[in-house]
Amino acid sequence: MAEAQAEETEREEEDYRLDGELVEAILDATEQEDAARLSELLEPLHAADIADLLEQISGHERRAILRLWGREIDGEILTEIDEGIREEVLASLPPDVLADAVRELDSDDVVDLIEDLEEPQQEAILDALDEPDRVAVEKSLAYPEYSAGRLMQREVVTAPEHWTVGETIDFLRKAEWLPDQFYHVTLVDPGHHPIGNVTLGRILSAPRASKLVDICEDEFRTISAYQDEGDVAYAFNQYHLISAPVVDEDDRLVGVITIDDAMSVLDEEHEEDILRLAGVGEESSISDTVLETVRQRLPWLFVNLLTAILASAVIAVFEGTIQKLVALAVLMPIVASMGGNAGTQTLTVAVRALATKNLTESNVWRVVRREVIVGMLNGLAFAVVMGVVASFWFSGAQLGVVIALAMLINLSVAAFAGILVPLTLEKVGADPALASGTFVTTVTDVVGFFSFLGLASLILL
Amino acid sequence: MAEAQAEETEREEEDYRLDGELVEAILDATEQEDAARLSELLEPLHAADIADLLEQISGHERRAILRLWGREIDGEILTEIDEGIREEVLASLPPDVLADAVRELDSDDVVDLIEDLEEPQQEAILDALDEPDRVAVEKSLAYPEYSAGRLMQREVVTAPEHWTVGETIDFLRKAEWLPDQFYHVTLVDPGHHPIGNVTLGRILSAPRASKLVDICEDEFRTISAYQDEGDVAYAFNQYHLISAPVVDEDDRLVGVITIDDAMSVLDEEHEEDILRLAGVGEESSISDTVLETVRQRLPWLFVNLLTAILASAVIAVFEGTIQKLVALAVLMPIVASMGGNAGTQTLTVAVRALATKNLTESNVWRVVRREVIVGMLNGLAFAVVMGVVASFWFSGAQLGVVIALAMLINLSVAAFAGILVPLTLEKVGADPALASGTFVTTVTDVVGFFSFLGLASLILL
Repeated sequence: MAEAQAEETEREEEDYRLDGELVEAILDATEQEDAARLSELLEPLHAADIADLLEQISGHERRAILRLWGREIDGEILTEIDEGIREEVLASLPPDVLADAVRELDSDDVVDLIEDLEEPQQEAILDALDEPDRVAVEKSLAYPEYSAGRLMQREVVTAPEHWTVGETIDFLRKAEWLPDQFYHVTLVDPGHHPIGNVTLGRILSAPRASKLVDICEDEFRTISAYQDEGDVAYAFNQYHLISAPVVDEDDRLVGVITIDDAMSVLDEEHEEDILRLAGVGEESSISDTVLETVRQRLPWLFVNLLTAILASAVIAVFEGTIQKLVALAVLMPIVASMGGNAGTQTLTVAVRALATKNLTESNVWRVVRREVIVGMLNGLAFAVVMGVVASFWFSGAQLGVVIALAMLINLSVAAFAGILVPLTLEKVGADPALASGTFVTTVTDVVGFFSFLGLASLILL
Repeated sequence: MAEAQAEETEREEEDYRLDGELVEAILDATEQEDAARLSELLEPLHAADIADLLEQISGHERRAILRLWGREIDGEILTEIDEGIREEVLASLPPDVLADAVRELDSDDVVDLIEDLEEPQQEAILDALDEPDRVAVEKSLAYPEYSAGRLMQREVVTAPEHWTVGETIDFLRKAEWLPDQFYHVTLVDPGHHPIGNVTLGRILSAPRASKLVDICEDEFRTISAYQDEGDVAYAFNQYHLISAPVVDEDDRLVGVITIDDAMSVLDEEHEEDILRLAGVGEESSISDTVLETVRQRLPWLFVNLLTAILASAVIAVFEGTIQKLVALAVLMPIVASMGGNAGTQTLTVAVRALATKNLTESNVWRVVRREVIVGMLNGLAFAVVMGVVASFWFSGAQLGVVIALAMLINLSVAAFAGILVPLTLEKVGADPALASGTFVTTVTDVVGFFSFLGLASLILL
């Protein structure tokens, strides 16, 4: 049985998804209060997978597992746990278990773990740390939220600029403590300003007598501790950085950021963008309760209700027109829907281009022009199609002309709005992903209904 | 002037955006055919920034720059250039420049550069490579598109399992060639099967006599060459991998994937998801021409037109009802719009949860239940609000009841569709991001119009 289990774990690793049968077995062991079996099942799993498991099961099951197995939890698992259930899990652990777990962690992981906790819970964890670690964490917490200072690890491997490869290796062999993972030795001058990075590969392959300054990487970038973490992730991705020194206002070395942290940030930023574009609270997760979910989504739906009522008010102006020709009521949603879709296409491309810093002064007008021409061409194409369809459907060529004109107008306006709305939001310092969709579809609904019904009352009646 | 320029370049690095004035200066130099000045301006820029510049300017400007400065282009810049303009840039280079540029690259970069090119262009580049490099690239190209085999670099630093730290360092010092960046020495058995990874940090800090097998990392994961690259990126992010050995069908070592490549894939996968959700061709980029853009977007708009006509057909069934009560035409878009928004919220959360492998057998029914309950609660809330608004607006309590019921029905259905559509697409092997939006809004439009107008004709007339 234990062997069959091991085989299953193997297979599950292949597609990196939690194996349903394994989860089943874990929940079985929990229900039977079989702590030994539970440990045996959880032990081979990676911390990130255990965290996923805790997120995916129900709150009731989670509490039962933590009761039986909580004493075995370690710091790594805690840092992997989603914010949504982190407080709950931390609160459920005995204070000594929590203290032990936290003491294993690097300073950046402790910061990540506690930065969103309430004051008392934060204090309890800080108290568990040894004095130097506590100070390090508090220093990081003094940097603004979402800054490089919060993201960085304070433990950096440095060397004076005059050292040779041999001296560096001797130093590293004697070092009492080194970070788990490090990729560079950072050269610092006497004022503790970083002046270059040497990869470990070069240190290993160069003769002992080589000077570190002679084998530095050509590319050297430092990151300000106040830099936004999204920009840090961008820089890692853009410049293929592996680790980069972080400096304070005086360009003094205060920490290091490694690519795995930058990758997590990139992933989170994307998640936020995608959820914001859909009008979902960016913190939403699969483990949220019904009430949390309602609380996140209701405000956006309410904003949408207001804009929908605005669009309806436009229709109300033309009640008389619709009364005379009900076909208008049948056709008007098509004009609005096409505008909404075309606008969403444009704005998504614009939001992405802004996020990847590909929409700049140098090309903004060319991109705006391209979008508007594309909008007009698409508008023209669908004007012809819908004109013909409507003419036959309601046997009236004039109705066809009206919907064709409205389609052309609305798809052109959709392109304009789709690019100008995110650009404007960016300009005023707002997140272009956040409210663009609502603005744009409001414009396309209002313009769609107004142009179609307005033209109809001018031409048809 | 040169100094002022240097200062500007400094400032630009801070927010990682191409500086408008620098771009201006580059275009000026190009227009004046001042090749020396152009070189001087481009030389300090990172390859990725030069690639961004070439993408952001117009085709005319790009051709002018490449004419003046093309001989200085290097392999790194080529790999950074977006697919949209890659063929054009490659075709514009003199054959000897292209050959030199390609010869500098690691095998994975060559694969990345040429895999999407047409046969003749691909052949021309392969011919420029030395025989061993050519064979390496062709071997990688034999793996399926988007597989780990295509992503990996074939150059791996390995050591036999019995080696000590000292032997390893001596070997590395004598090695004629080492990859630019490597993070592990991979231990292999006599059959060339990878059996463990040693970080360079441990090799540097351990005594010369230590055996490599004794300082291996605890966690060791190999990746199949046939693994989908999206899953590879997921594994790197989930398990905080830095580099991982790639193995063939017989578990023999064939290459290595490093985290910077995984990060690029993660970024591309996100880009695809976000563009697919918006119904934009996933290959679209800011440097596309008008015609390419129309060609990418028109098909999706056409699908949307068909579904919009379907929804209109539903309205057409109730023409008589609307004729008797035009207020219905005014209110019906509100029901449809709210359903569309609620459905989009749910489906976005579902698509993300599927992409991050957080929606599994263990929690799927709980998540479906949560979404439907959330949909009903939101439906209830907006039923009350819209019921009251409609009653006052059109002075009719019965109309209020009709819209309230329709709202409740449509928001509940929206939640159902929002979760079941992506789940079904995933089940049948399609990308849940690809067509979910269209399916879901079709459902909410049809159900919204049908329930509202249907209830109206039952209750009001």
